[in-house]
Amino acid sequence: MSTLPSVADALFRPRSIALVGASGDQNKHASLPHQYLRRHGYGGEIFPINANRDSVFGEKAFKSVCLVGKPVDHAFIMLPTDSVRDAVSDCCRAGVRCATILSNGFAESGESGRLRQEELVDLAREGGLRLLGPNSLGIINLPDRVALSANEILSLPELRPGRTSLISQSGSLIGALLSRGQARGLGFAKMISVGNEADLGVSEMGEMLVDDPGTDAIFLFLETIRDADGIAAMTRRAFAAGKPVIAFRVGRSDVGEQLAASHTGALVGSGAAMDAFLRDIGVVRVETIDALLEVAPLIKGHRPPTGRRVSVVSTTGGGGALVIDALAGHDIEVVPPSETAMTNLAAQGITISRTPLVDLTLAGTNPKTYGAVLREMMRSPDCDLIVSIVGSSSQFRPDRAVLPIAAAVEQNSAMPVAVFLTPHAETSLSLLSEANVAAFRTPESCADAMRAFFDWRAPRPVLDLETPHAAAALLAAAPGSSLDARAAGAVFESLGVPVVPETVLPADTDAIRAMPLDTLTYPVVAKILSADIAHKTEVGGVVVGCKDPDALRAAALRILESVARARPEARLAGIQVQPMVRGIGEVLLGYRRDRSVGPVVTLGVGGVLTEIYRDVAVRLAPLDVAGAREMIAEVRGLAPLRGYRGLPKGDLEALAQAIASFSHLALLDVSEAEINPVLIRAEGEGVVALDALLEREVDHAV
Amino acid sequence: MSTLPSVADALFRPRSIALVGASGDQNKHASLPHQYLRRHGYGGEIFPINANRDSVFGEKAFKSVCLVGKPVDHAFIMLPTDSVRDAVSDCCRAGVRCATILSNGFAESGESGRLRQEELVDLAREGGLRLLGPNSLGIINLPDRVALSANEILSLPELRPGRTSLISQSGSLIGALLSRGQARGLGFAKMISVGNEADLGVSEMGEMLVDDPGTDAIFLFLETIRDADGIAAMTRRAFAAGKPVIAFRVGRSDVGEQLAASHTGALVGSGAAMDAFLRDIGVVRVETIDALLEVAPLIKGHRPPTGRRVSVVSTTGGGGALVIDALAGHDIEVVPPSETAMTNLAAQGITISRTPLVDLTLAGTNPKTYGAVLREMMRSPDCDLIVSIVGSSSQFRPDRAVLPIAAAVEQNSAMPVAVFLTPHAETSLSLLSEANVAAFRTPESCADAMRAFFDWRAPRPVLDLETPHAAAALLAAAPGSSLDARAAGAVFESLGVPVVPETVLPADTDAIRAMPLDTLTYPVVAKILSADIAHKTEVGGVVVGCKDPDALRAAALRILESVARARPEARLAGIQVQPMVRGIGEVLLGYRRDRSVGPVVTLGVGGVLTEIYRDVAVRLAPLDVAGAREMIAEVRGLAPLRGYRGLPKGDLEALAQAIASFSHLALLDVSEAEINPVLIRAEGEGVVALDALLEREVDHAV
Repeated sequence: MSTLPSVADALFRPRSIALVGASGDQNKHASLPHQYLRRHGYGGEIFPINANRDSVFGEKAFKSVCLVGKPVDHAFIMLPTDSVRDAVSDCCRAGVRCATILSNGFAESGESGRLRQEELVDLAREGGLRLLGPNSLGIINLPDRVALSANEILSLPELRPGRTSLISQSGSLIGALLSRGQARGLGFAKMISVGNEADLGVSEMGEMLVDDPGTDAIFLFLETIRDADGIAAMTRRAFAAGKPVIAFRVGRSDVGEQLAASHTGALVGSGAAMDAFLRDIGVVRVETIDALLEVAPLIKGHRPPTGRRVSVVSTTGGGGALVIDALAGHDIEVVPPSETAMTNLAAQGITISRTPLVDLTLAGTNPKTYGAVLREMMRSPDCDLIVSIVGSSSQFRPDRAVLPIAAAVEQNSAMPVAVFLTPHAETSLSLLSEANVAAFRTPESCADAMRAFFDWRAPRPVLDLETPHAAAALLAAAPGSSLDARAAGAVFESLGVPVVPETVLPADTDAIRAMPLDTLTYPVVAKILSADIAHKTEVGGVVVGCKDPDALRAAALRILESVARARPEARLAGIQVQPMVRGIGEVLLGYRRDRSVGPVVTLGVGGVLTEIYRDVAVRLAPLDVAGAREMIAEVRGLAPLRGYRGLPKGDLEALAQAIASFSHLALLDVSEAEINPVLIRAEGEGVVALDALLEREVDHAV
Repeated sequence: MSTLPSVADALFRPRSIALVGASGDQNKHASLPHQYLRRHGYGGEIFPINANRDSVFGEKAFKSVCLVGKPVDHAFIMLPTDSVRDAVSDCCRAGVRCATILSNGFAESGESGRLRQEELVDLAREGGLRLLGPNSLGIINLPDRVALSANEILSLPELRPGRTSLISQSGSLIGALLSRGQARGLGFAKMISVGNEADLGVSEMGEMLVDDPGTDAIFLFLETIRDADGIAAMTRRAFAAGKPVIAFRVGRSDVGEQLAASHTGALVGSGAAMDAFLRDIGVVRVETIDALLEVAPLIKGHRPPTGRRVSVVSTTGGGGALVIDALAGHDIEVVPPSETAMTNLAAQGITISRTPLVDLTLAGTNPKTYGAVLREMMRSPDCDLIVSIVGSSSQFRPDRAVLPIAAAVEQNSAMPVAVFLTPHAETSLSLLSEANVAAFRTPESCADAMRAFFDWRAPRPVLDLETPHAAAALLAAAPGSSLDARAAGAVFESLGVPVVPETVLPADTDAIRAMPLDTLTYPVVAKILSADIAHKTEVGGVVVGCKDPDALRAAALRILESVARARPEARLAGIQVQPMVRGIGEVLLGYRRDRSVGPVVTLGVGGVLTEIYRDVAVRLAPLDVAGAREMIAEVRGLAPLRGYRGLPKGDLEALAQAIASFSHLALLDVSEAEINPVLIRAEGEGVVALDALLEREVDHAV
């Protein structure tokens, strides 16, 4: 018996492959993997498995994998849904190391399919078989000539290998990316269609790529996150290994829908939570598929940037304007060249203008000038990225256009350089890619990649936080799953969020009539306190501006009367009395456990306009004060509190502290929470939570 | 003597060309037009003009155009700036019909250049010579083989002619677009670099293209608008002739800067005004250069749409998701196929799902199924555009992939169809273009083109409005250029804008002390009235909530005291007293004369957040109520008043009436105006202007 290969070897470099359900009919999909393996020079053994045939394409076929009689590293299953189970059993019996299942009709097709899939996984686990799929389009290892897929892209006569690998949850997109990459001269190493991820998923496949000496960068095409912890561990390792992980996520349009349906803590859909997750784990997220192919050289060998400043040098003013235009709305600063650069260039007889767009015009297309300008601009400490735009010379004189850029990048690898070519210039694009220079076909993908670079962060260190025992005790002591504002406020306060002081009057008219109420500081606001009432104002449960004890007494009685009428069944915990406080702004803080990525904190200005403008910042929880500061900086609606147009500044540092404290909810059994509003006072005067909601994580009716 | 050609003939089909400043040195730019004309088969006579040479490329050269001794239709001037004047004189003397001036150093280079340019134009006018440029990269007529340009793209051995023409204010972008079009199989008819538009500009060149039987669609690459009226007249004629005018405008990023610097009436930069202009005159505006090349078939033969509904059919779920994602934020509804379509397809044995994305999967790639589904979906009255996504078959079996789409579009030309191809599939792109089907290379350009189609409107009819004489008289009677709030309010009221009633107290403490003030309805607000004071609150010039005559008197005296201290020099017209009114929302209405496109009206929610979110609608003024309703619909921040989340609806119909009335300012000599705020009451209860500013259009110091 031969030695058992590693799972990675069996997946990527199988010594033998069984094609289960192989067809000899060229017009059938099930015939394609056989043809493609041969076409692309697979060097191992192929065993067609077909119950009804003795040979396929002239090669001996077997009734089952067990009957092959030789070791099979990898089985590729292309049977109808109902026959997959038996094929998996067959593979287990035959001692196959791994199976890729092309067949669909499993978890992606509903509940019965999900059960079918679970059965498969159980069966495979018992039999020591690892599964890729089901609903996987296969796996391609270009350098090693293993083209194990039914993807039509493999009908290309030759595939250019490379050092970038792709893991995709969409099978068909593998073909699209491979096709576009090939046309651009961008080769791939491994391409993996993970399908339903029943067993092997994004995280485990990613780990194999981190360990793969043939892979320099990992692309992810994501529709969902099925194993957040595993993926986070994988991307952290990739970051440490200097292998960029670059993701394209579909489902941006869902954010809108989910926002529209927002309520307590759920101000964001899972798309925004996914973005927060990807950012926190060091993944570069692009929004165009062109940028997915093109951005890697901006990341590889570089560190996450601290600024968002770009300098633009162009031989075509129009082309430069296209890129600058596409940057609009990304909060990226276009900066002129430094004085030093201008002086140094002047010494070489080259005059450039101190403008955001350095336009060398046609005259500057000679390699000497262009190279000198680029080299000088790349030395500037006041800039985080250079974008270079090249006009028609990139089409007609690729060497001339590309050489000075490639040479400058080779000389000074510290500064990331992006290149946009205005004409159709495939040769220049390829040459630049080969020189490890990020080169872009459209102003949009160029701008998207720059945005992705500027948004790139190192994986956030895992915070080593102790369980907040006092808060946990308060939470445990509260009855039911929904806490009332007082109980919720106590939890937040215990975590370190400043909460407005309060007095609670009993929900008892006689007692209220009898109380002196003269020790309070007036004016005050009175609010009904009940875990059963989320919208207090709607039931007449709030009276603001009570000036003295008599006014408060009257207000309290009025509240009890209104609430008794509107919500007779509600359990009342009393009447919460708080001083009237003033601030110069307010925000909403939300917390929830996202189904796929776990605890997230959301910050918005609050109110209906925050929803309409979708102006919220989202981060994984818990987070530290630095992370909270970043959130604050992201919310455009907080600009007035940052001193926009000379408006008084708010105490955003205190807000950052409060956000970080609030995010410690992730250490407790809390499913959803909200402070609406957190009142923000002037700089140095702090913030204070005015109202609180909290749902414990317990089984409760939805 | 030969007959004098028309200007269009001399420009596009010159029988003879003088190359003024022609060089015989292949490495010099001035040698290129000669080489390019020959390479692309120019059939007329070429006369090199060079004071220092007897021959150029073996052809006889002349010292001046006058010395040619034969009629010259078109001169191409490539001389240093200082020599251009003499060349123009020479052309005039020689009776040349038109000259294209490549040379720069004119209006684009500052004031002295502007004067040089004016001189040229005067000279040419006197001499009967029409000018293109200066700073023009030339003119290319592909079908007639006139390649009169120094653009390097002409070094391509062959250029594919087509029926689309381009007018560009950027010379270098002509090369980029021609290059990208050629690679895509999209040919061009005429390409014109208008440069500084000293004489012949976008409007006049456009008119020639509207009249050109070889031109079916006109592309504009715009940096500015120099002749709004002329361009509007041209695009109206183009629309009537069924020739789409499609524009790409650079300078989107300026909007941000200009917004940040906004003040009275100038809430928008000129970019937004340009967009409003282009939309009003029936131009289709794209935001990606790929869409500029690709969108025409969505427009040609179609009418501006009334809805914004799109149906999506795909053979690749991932590809469909890419397009739907890219549509996010464009307010486009993705609708499922109609019941009728599903029933009709079921009758043919084809089952599709009633989901926004109709995914036919790989199984549906056969032309019969795909064609049937497409044909049925195209018949739906509940959809305004179909987008079809094709996967790998478009790369490997172009005929198979493209035929069903081309056939369906040929059968039913009423429904616009957009096609996105997921792989690199240049042949399919070309085939679709040839079949007059809009085909897109990226999800972003596809989404941009759809957005452009849905935003497309017929040119707005010119409103036939009479001068509002009463308002004009009020305006004329007001002293100075800045009107105070009372005078401005009177003008607005006269135009039909409801203005809050007011009483004006004299700016005289004794008189105020003596007045009974008991005929007013309280509470009231008191505001200083002065054309010299724009920011009343800052000088203590406003007191709200005066409950009775004594409170008002005290407030009025306090205001006079504060203002006297803060602004002793200000001329005071009195104290404006208005009832305190309440509404459920408010907006800011602005008016200004834009430097390039003329009067525009701006609508926003007002306040600092409107600036931050750049949430304003802009239209040319005057406009009608229908146009005002469109503006209201565009402002996202007005969603609450549209009943968002069950909030009470505002009287947006009254607001539309007020906006239309306000826009009649364009019929008066007003340079800038603002109502901030217009208070909006509940549905049926109207709107009312609370504060008014107005600047007359007179010479006044800046």
